[in-house]
Amino acid sequence: MSKKTVIVGGVAGGATVAARLRRLDENMEIVMFEKDEFISFANCGLPYHIGEVIKDRSKLLLQTPKAMKDRFELDVRVFSEVVKVDPVAKTVTVNSKDRGTYEESYDYLVLSPGASPMKPPIKGIDSKKVYSLRNIPDTDAIKAEVDKNTKATAIVIGGGFIGIEAAENMVERGLNVILVEAVPHILAPFDSELSMIAEAEMESRGVELHLGDGVSEFIEEGNKISVKLASGTVLTGDFVVAAIGVKPETGFLKDSGIVLGPRGHIVTDDHMRTNFENVYAAGDAAEIVDFMTKGRTAIPLAGPANRQGRIIADNIAGIDRKYSGSMGTSILKVFDMTAAATGMNERNAKRAGIPVKAIFIHPNSHATYYPGATQLSAKLVFTEDRKVLGAQAVGYDGVDKLIDVIATAIKFGATVDDLAELELAYAPPFLSAKSPANMMGFVAQNTLEGLADNRTIDEFNAEYDPAAMVLLDVRDKIEVENGSVDGMVHIPLNSLRARMSELPKDKLIWIYCQVGLRGYIAARILNQNGYMTKNLSGGYKLINFAKF
Amino acid sequence: MSKKTVIVGGVAGGATVAARLRRLDENMEIVMFEKDEFISFANCGLPYHIGEVIKDRSKLLLQTPKAMKDRFELDVRVFSEVVKVDPVAKTVTVNSKDRGTYEESYDYLVLSPGASPMKPPIKGIDSKKVYSLRNIPDTDAIKAEVDKNTKATAIVIGGGFIGIEAAENMVERGLNVILVEAVPHILAPFDSELSMIAEAEMESRGVELHLGDGVSEFIEEGNKISVKLASGTVLTGDFVVAAIGVKPETGFLKDSGIVLGPRGHIVTDDHMRTNFENVYAAGDAAEIVDFMTKGRTAIPLAGPANRQGRIIADNIAGIDRKYSGSMGTSILKVFDMTAAATGMNERNAKRAGIPVKAIFIHPNSHATYYPGATQLSAKLVFTEDRKVLGAQAVGYDGVDKLIDVIATAIKFGATVDDLAELELAYAPPFLSAKSPANMMGFVAQNTLEGLADNRTIDEFNAEYDPAAMVLLDVRDKIEVENGSVDGMVHIPLNSLRARMSELPKDKLIWIYCQVGLRGYIAARILNQNGYMTKNLSGGYKLINFAKF
Ligand SMILES: Cc1cc2nc3c(=O)[nH]c(=O)nc-3n(C[C@H](O)[C@H](O)[C@H](O)COP(=O)(O)OP(=O)(O)OC[C@H]3O[C@@H](n4cnc5c(N)ncnc54)[C@H](O)[C@@H]3O)c2cc1C
Ligand SMILES: Cc1cc2nc3c(=O)[nH]c(=O)nc-3n(C[C@H](O)[C@H](O)[C@H](O)COP(=O)(O)OP(=O)(O)OC[C@H]3O[C@@H](n4cnc5c(N)ncnc54)[C@H](O)[C@@H]3O)c2cc1C
Ligand SMILES: CC(C)(COP(=O)(O)OP(=O)(O)OC[C@H]1O[C@@H](n2cnc3c(N)ncnc32)[C@H](O)[C@@H]1OP(=O)(O)O)[C@@H](O)C(=O)NCCC(=O)NCCS
Ligand SMILES: CC(C)(COP(=O)(O)OP(=O)(O)OC[C@H]1O[C@@H](n2cnc3c(N)ncnc32)[C@H](O)[C@@H]1OP(=O)(O)O)[C@@H](O)C(=O)NCCC(=O)NCCS
Repeated sequence: MSKKTVIVGGVAGGATVAARLRRLDENMEIVMFEKDEFISFANCGLPYHIGEVIKDRSKLLLQTPKAMKDRFELDVRVFSEVVKVDPVAKTVTVNSKDRGTYEESYDYLVLSPGASPMKPPIKGIDSKKVYSLRNIPDTDAIKAEVDKNTKATAIVIGGGFIGIEAAENMVERGLNVILVEAVPHILAPFDSELSMIAEAEMESRGVELHLGDGVSEFIEEGNKISVKLASGTVLTGDFVVAAIGVKPETGFLKDSGIVLGPRGHIVTDDHMRTNFENVYAAGDAAEIVDFMTKGRTAIPLAGPANRQGRIIADNIAGIDRKYSGSMGTSILKVFDMTAAATGMNERNAKRAGIPVKAIFIHPNSHATYYPGATQLSAKLVFTEDRKVLGAQAVGYDGVDKLIDVIATAIKFGATVDDLAELELAYAPPFLSAKSPANMMGFVAQNTLEGLADNRTIDEFNAEYDPAAMVLLDVRDKIEVENGSVDGMVHIPLNSLRARMSELPKDKLIWIYCQVGLRGYIAARILNQNGYMTKNLSGGYKLINFAKF
Repeated sequence: MSKKTVIVGGVAGGATVAARLRRLDENMEIVMFEKDEFISFANCGLPYHIGEVIKDRSKLLLQTPKAMKDRFELDVRVFSEVVKVDPVAKTVTVNSKDRGTYEESYDYLVLSPGASPMKPPIKGIDSKKVYSLRNIPDTDAIKAEVDKNTKATAIVIGGGFIGIEAAENMVERGLNVILVEAVPHILAPFDSELSMIAEAEMESRGVELHLGDGVSEFIEEGNKISVKLASGTVLTGDFVVAAIGVKPETGFLKDSGIVLGPRGHIVTDDHMRTNFENVYAAGDAAEIVDFMTKGRTAIPLAGPANRQGRIIADNIAGIDRKYSGSMGTSILKVFDMTAAATGMNERNAKRAGIPVKAIFIHPNSHATYYPGATQLSAKLVFTEDRKVLGAQAVGYDGVDKLIDVIATAIKFGATVDDLAELELAYAPPFLSAKSPANMMGFVAQNTLEGLADNRTIDEFNAEYDPAAMVLLDVRDKIEVENGSVDGMVHIPLNSLRARMSELPKDKLIWIYCQVGLRGYIAARILNQNGYMTKNLSGGYKLINFAKF
């Protein structure tokens, strides 16, 4: 007799399980429950439909129940919410629009219910003028507000990916956009140096940022809504998009016996199995292994959801397939910029008690002599024993490529020496002969080998003491004229050998150039002549960003 | 007493050694000999200066002897050709413009003389109208021809990287360009399916291609030059650019005792050392380890030259650093397209006697619902025991990223399963949730696990027998109306379950769709119902390209 698989949730994880499982098994009965109207929609495209970058709404609907039936012989049931799971009896209870409440039995159960927007208990958050963005109806509602008045003021709460995408797309439509973030910087996966670059980009495009200031209350006032912040600031706009984070939609599992993690995620093993052998979970609702720390985590992103779905289908069909955990590789368009990250950032690593080193470089996206090259800002985090822990980059071009290369390297446990040795595809329109990934490896090697004491901007800010130390600017005159740090001593790199006697040997010399490279060369010259130096990794460019 | 390093060749490998060595050692005496006028120039930018993409000639000159002196305290001697090396006496003999012939002693010697254009003994090849392209004077000469008459006809000999870049840049200037290639397809690092796509792009931009036809004679005729081909075809143009390949410029080492390889390359060990402990070699002239086969090879590309240079400097300065070989990652702009490859192609693997599998996919550069996505054509070569050997891709966007990711994975000995698991940066403007690299892994897994017998176009062409087999087209009606293969049976995928009884169970069924995906799904349906199938990897898109 053929077996039956029941799937809860019909989008990224769920639909992928269904499609793959059918390819593997023509005889499996496959029933997919979706509580809303739509399956297989492009969650990630929703903000761009609001921005009319994706004009045609139907493009967001990648599959319909009919198309899934035709191609994959699936029994897709929309408007059908699974409200209870009994993993001992192997049944689910369904509340459906068309058939009322009924039970459905299964041999295998796959849970991919996703995550829903967090709604912290802030006064007024239930106002109709406070929207969130998860699905097609949410998108329709926000887009209707925008279409109604493209001169409106929108207040976005939350500087994470969805908040920033919403903000950008509303700016593109002409709205006046204010963004509020409770912690000091937007973009939690990034260290603050990089977040600041993205913040500058947003501000340059007219987004009003309120950072380090949480919401204490939403107040409807006639046609308007006001947002009161912890600082006392009151912002007034036409509507609010709250994108404060997501929580797993696992309420229906509460009494099922399926083990949930501390924040409500479904605990899975390396086969994406729950504590019941024939019950699997994927996607935003699943708790998985953190590839970096080997601890437990949950990564609400589509790539993992899709790959986990395929692994589940394989395991159900008898192909043994393991999931080795997520490293949280993520990317975001911020107007004309791209911001991407993989693995651990310095803040996370330190919080986890891992002693790390970090370097910051500003390489070009391709050979500078070929037109169109732009500078990336890129940070590498690594350990004393040379292992790469993570990378982050922001820029106009080549950011996605760099981070994908580092994510691939991390997957294999790369060291900084491996990065230095990567053989990437170089021709002038595409890269430099020493690619940004190589360069990260080089600079990290130099740090570890003590060739230069490359330091982060945080360390500079914490440690530089004008009274006891010298600050040396080794840039050219014209660069200095465009801005420099008060109190610095200016000796251009090319004059350093001749003029180093002007510097003291008994004081620590902090060196900076524009990006860090000349500072490093200066450090090499001085170190070998008996001076004590530290070089600011990232250079004046970073000091300058920090001024925002 | 301070030591002295002598460097032969002042560009990619040589200048990198010099710069790095100075950073490592302020006291080392560093003398760099360059036989021509220019050091540190952008070889790779030369074709783009002819095309005026890089308008300003001075941009090609990354460093001057004076700048290198100022920053790195180097003794750069141009117009100084090293004509002899005596590694026992530790001296080189120099023919210089300003000082005549003299000897220079060294403690360490670094050889980075590069490679010069091959000039096979073809009658007439010494004509003044036959140019080659290696350095600034060559570029000036070709550019002068182009500037003189932008309606001229140029004949390019050789369909390698330099030939194609020269052709493209002359087309961009308005010239009529003919390209001659002796073997059946351009772009030797690629298998023919991919070369054909690049050929189509070139033809669509007006380049007249003569493939599989070698040159037998060059004949000057007044202002014109004729090129006679093996086939008897005679082409007539205003000038010729011969880009037939390069050979190491190691003539001056002939009697030195330094061991050269079969084609004249300097044999190096894993520290880039020659058979003399204090003599190193880098770049185009060096014979190194083939990272894939562990045999010997030479890769005339700038990335390896630069990294080898850095490794040599490290070893001279006492930092132990090894070179693990090159995998030949390379990339090329072909008008609006990009072609890139890494590792082994199917042809090379077969030639080396390695039994390989290959799959061909046409993934999109990013999520299709976000504007601007374009299709890549990508091939993965791997072994029965799952190891990735190489990849090639051609397309308009995302080719460089895909190949860099695969090159990184290969560096760590990746399997196809590793590719399936990569966690790359996904948001709709940048990638698909199932990225092309993941997709390569998926399709390869399916091939290895026997889910579908995915076959290459070569196998299809060799094995498909209309008399004994069925050819099944599973595309939609409208696609079939735009072209199909004669004699096929048409059953759209979504009708296959209902109509499969129309197909025979005792004959092999070759399936094709547009790119391979639906063919794979069809194969799964048929296989599980007792049919024998093979699926054409790459689909009709590939058949269509093969028609060119
Ligand atoms: C606006 C937005 C932008 C995003 N952008 C990106 C991006 O750029 N890159 C990226 O990687 N990720 C992005 N994501 C995240 C990505 O969409 C999710 O990680 C992914 O969809 C998770 O897949 P899933 O299957 O776990 O959940 P979902 O895709 O959310 O699917 C879960 C489905 O289950 C249904 N469901 C829930 N409970 C039940 C129940 N009890 N019974 C029946 N049905 C139920 C829900 O209605 C929902 O349709 C974005 C998400 C949003 C909302
Ligand atoms: C037109 C063109 C386009 C290219 N495009 C790309 C590309 O897109 N990507 C890529 O990776 N690579 C590309 N390359 C290849 C790349 O430039 C080389 O791989 C790289 O420059 C090799 O470095 P090298 O130090 O070995 O030799 P070179 O950079 O060629 O330097 C060798 C120098 O040594 C000098 N010399 C030789 N013999 C002596 C002697 N006896 N005494 C003194 N001096 C001597 C020569 O005059 C020369 O200047 C391109 C090359 C050319 C010509
Ligand atoms: C639409 C959806 C059902 C498609 O699922 P899918 O069929 O598994 O995925 P794809 O259409 O990308 O096809 C992938 C399959 O094609 C195969 N394939 C792709 N190209 C191929 C080719 N040229 N030859 C042979 N097979 C090929 C792959 O191997 C894979 O099959 P496998 O999993 O059996 O190995 C599912 O992805 C979905 O619902 N997505 C929307 C929701 C979502 O992901 N949201 C978040 C992002 S916005
Ligand atoms: C110009 C040339 C001399 C430069 O050599 P170089 O100084 O080694 O190279 P770069 O200018 O790229 O600098 C790289 C160095 O800067 C360091 N660096 C880069 N960014 C840094 C930063 N932000 N902070 C600290 N150090 C940094 C790197 O670590 C590396 O130093 P290292 O090798 O000591 O580790 C050499 O590359 C050359 O001649 N190129 C032209 C020829 C050529 O390559 N042709 C083929 C391609 S067209």
